[in-house]
Amino acid sequence: MDGQGKEGSNGGGGGGGSGQYDVVARAFVEYYYQTFDANRAALAALYGHTSMLSFEGHMVAGAEEIGRKLAALPFEQCRHAVCTVDCQPTPSFPGGILVFVSGNLQLAGEEHQLRFSQMFQLVPNEQGSFFVQNDIFRLNYG
Amino acid sequence: MDGQGKEGSNGGGGGGGSGQYDVVARAFVEYYYQTFDANRAALAALYGHTSMLSFEGHMVAGAEEIGRKLAALPFEQCRHAVCTVDCQPTPSFPGGILVFVSGNLQLAGEEHQLRFSQMFQLVPNEQGSFFVQNDIFRLNYG
Repeated sequence: MDGQGKEGSNGGGGGGGSGQYDVVARAFVEYYYQTFDANRAALAALYGHTSMLSFEGHMVAGAEEIGRKLAALPFEQCRHAVCTVDCQPTPSFPGGILVFVSGNLQLAGEEHQLRFSQMFQLVPNEQGSFFVQNDIFRLNYG
Repeated sequence: MDGQGKEGSNGGGGGGGSGQYDVVARAFVEYYYQTFDANRAALAALYGHTSMLSFEGHMVAGAEEIGRKLAALPFEQCRHAVCTVDCQPTPSFPGGILVFVSGNLQLAGEEHQLRFSQMFQLVPNEQGSFFVQNDIFRLNYG
């Protein structure tokens, strides 16, 4: 996560609300969408070989394949505006962080924004940072 | 589940590919929303003492508190219609299943449906079944 995400408290906490996971989650969200909009190719580094991405119902696995999928999305330029961020630790799985995002996606050349929801599971890696274990993206059609 | 969720390559990825998590996830989704609409009080049994629910940005923890939160939601009767179901295993955390749902929520007495997104993390329990470790719900405005 490019140093933005300091390692979470390994205890995870069971709803006590130390808030460390919250700091990690929000830093991740900021970094993820900034990077998506400015340098999408750099996103692949956030994933690992066991990672999974479901994008509008199509699932790919592994950082390489995920990078290819993101590069091949049928839009060149876009801008994400985050509306809500919810996050939770996963007491059964110490160190894991769930992040749930809703927002708007503006595609270049399109008049109307698209509404989206996306969830991530962040998992500690060996470098003391986090990688994206799970990523599920859906557009919200009205 | 009105069938739309059958799109996509569920069961195909993730390395294992047995698709068992997909069966569990879809059975859970069907049971969860049927129970929510018919006998909401029974939902508390799906949660454990470490479970967390974030409902429109308000987080509560533990099965009892979650049960009280669900009972206290400001609508008596409702009907969920599921549009999409995405699910993934969590290789870092064996046995965990992530479920991401989008759908419509019809409240009694309201003309218009509300669009919602919700995610769950299911975790194996000691009885050989699963409990809801994480639950995040958001209405999709806009």
